[in-house]
Amino acid sequence: MSDTERGSQTAEERARQQLIDLAAEFYDQFDRGDVPQMTLPTRSKSNIVFDEESHVWVYGDRTSTRSANSVRGARKLLKAAYTIEFLARQLDEERSSTLRELYYLSESWDSEEAGFSSQDESNQLVEDLEIVSGVTREDFHMRPEESGATLMGPLELREQTRRGEREIHCQEDVGEGGYQIPNNPDTIEFLDHDIDFVLCVETGGMRDRLIENGFDEAHNCLVVHLKGQPARATRRITKRLHDELDLPVVVFTDGDPWSYRIFGSVAYGSIKSAHLSEYLATPEARFVGIQPQDIVDYDLPTDPLADSDINALESELEDPRFMTDYWEEQIELQLDIEKKAEQQALASRGLDFVTETYLPERLGEMGVI
Amino acid sequence: MSDTERGSQTAEERARQQLIDLAAEFYDQFDRGDVPQMTLPTRSKSNIVFDEESHVWVYGDRTSTRSANSVRGARKLLKAAYTIEFLARQLDEERSSTLRELYYLSESWDSEEAGFSSQDESNQLVEDLEIVSGVTREDFHMRPEESGATLMGPLELREQTRRGEREIHCQEDVGEGGYQIPNNPDTIEFLDHDIDFVLCVETGGMRDRLIENGFDEAHNCLVVHLKGQPARATRRITKRLHDELDLPVVVFTDGDPWSYRIFGSVAYGSIKSAHLSEYLATPEARFVGIQPQDIVDYDLPTDPLADSDINALESELEDPRFMTDYWEEQIELQLDIEKKAEQQALASRGLDFVTETYLPERLGEMGVI
Repeated sequence: MSDTERGSQTAEERARQQLIDLAAEFYDQFDRGDVPQMTLPTRSKSNIVFDEESHVWVYGDRTSTRSANSVRGARKLLKAAYTIEFLARQLDEERSSTLRELYYLSESWDSEEAGFSSQDESNQLVEDLEIVSGVTREDFHMRPEESGATLMGPLELREQTRRGEREIHCQEDVGEGGYQIPNNPDTIEFLDHDIDFVLCVETGGMRDRLIENGFDEAHNCLVVHLKGQPARATRRITKRLHDELDLPVVVFTDGDPWSYRIFGSVAYGSIKSAHLSEYLATPEARFVGIQPQDIVDYDLPTDPLADSDINALESELEDPRFMTDYWEEQIELQLDIEKKAEQQALASRGLDFVTETYLPERLGEMGVI
Repeated sequence: MSDTERGSQTAEERARQQLIDLAAEFYDQFDRGDVPQMTLPTRSKSNIVFDEESHVWVYGDRTSTRSANSVRGARKLLKAAYTIEFLARQLDEERSSTLRELYYLSESWDSEEAGFSSQDESNQLVEDLEIVSGVTREDFHMRPEESGATLMGPLELREQTRRGEREIHCQEDVGEGGYQIPNNPDTIEFLDHDIDFVLCVETGGMRDRLIENGFDEAHNCLVVHLKGQPARATRRITKRLHDELDLPVVVFTDGDPWSYRIFGSVAYGSIKSAHLSEYLATPEARFVGIQPQDIVDYDLPTDPLADSDINALESELEDPRFMTDYWEEQIELQLDIEKKAEQQALASRGLDFVTETYLPERLGEMGVI
């Protein structure tokens, strides 16, 4: 048995144990004659704070209680108990399922009261269970609907699949499309690498440009395609690459407020998934561009800011993730020039400009190369 | 030199020659003292017909002429000439680019008049050049922004990458994410296979369910993930699998009018890309479900039809692609029961129901297994 396998079994066993402990707590409460209840951190915006030390979103001290002292509350705990039973069996049988399947599956449960009335309700319950148990959805073997993106670069890895182990080099053993990140990247073990830094890229067009120009080979970098707002799997593997291989991570996006949020979610996590910051966020990740300053310095083709862009920039000025001198300066500059630019606008200087000039200059300034 | 390489060079050479012939025609027109012009099939809806014989959309007989007898027309031909020069050089240098890069690149051209004023304009010109030259965008080495999806199944292929050839078995040499289809699937050569049929699947959740349950292994099928409305690369490889390996193709989607359109685009192409039907459409592809009849037969969990669903179903009744007894019956039934269902609704009968019961029954009825 390999280390990965042993590691993955431990995660499963731990997840299963945490779930059973939760159910046992309901049992003990009944046994003591208490009304069963479950206590959670309050998940309203006012109880989520940006931790200055760890640089990610975390829950504050306030808690809420789900109690069976009302029909509504009792039904919620009933659904939780059924879901726990399903998840524990799923882990036992080494199976997995999607959030949507869970919602539909609840129709087959023997108590009609336990069925979910909407997918929002089942999604919310799984998030609650993640928080209470301290186990991630992936370790419950709940798969996302959204698939992760791709990797390309000098990395050799071993993926533990249901069909056995696969050893894959992310340049030599894959096509031009790259290595497809599995739904649960914790099934991956890093075997060997020649990576100097990890470059996360927002758009497919730019990802393909970097690969065509051989940027990963020329600079020993691992190109991670974010594919817009990155899936959990993509953020998770980025964090693991940073933490386990001690690699710098840089993020390269379009130059508009929505793209800065993509950077923010890679680096600092999001309010919605504050309980996952430790698992998904890479606070050491740094932003390459397109910076508003680049629009000026490289005279890039631009589009004017729309009203929604201006509002988004203004709300970023209030967002603790962007409260640094760097971001304030850049965002103020963008509000001033009233322009935004796409990554691919660099092509206005020729197809090699991004790999021969722009990235070497920016990464040089940042001390990455 | 392998056959693929030779084949691919021929495609490039042919594309380049077609482009140069186009430019030469402008030259000859000038030389003869004629006003240069370019003749195209009229691309309005009224000149696009569903060909009853080939079962795909094709252009009718009407043509339109772009002539340099106005400033606007002259500017259009100037842009065409610059674009032809760029594409011919790109092919010569064995490079490629995206449609968006072409738009931005035009800013670097020496004539300011030749620059595109919007990306719609450059996209449209590339489509015009595809039609006039009879060469596809892929053979001009224009990459799409959207990446293709993944394959999983008993197929061994050779992909010609810029970094050399890669031989990949789409079960044994890939992780659980599968083999990522490259932007231009004509760089792939099929080496060996043990496939009985090709199963195109709309959603990631269902694709993962089939792989987890080992459906591809149990039934020797190649699972193609469509990822919603399929990219050109996904439709192209599906067509090649059908034509070159003589394999039945079946399509498995949600049970709603938008998903029937996904089936329609795989099988019959679309009005927008009528000039590509021969390259992208697989008229022999058949629909597995979710059929409205399945909603009734398997008592699936459903959602009510929204007004937009009803409108879309009604317009499908007028769509020549759906003018068969089968589709009329199914669509009428759906309008009657006023319900729609997702693929994953099959999970209401348990996680194995789709692979143990539903698909074997449906594929049995269809004579596929």
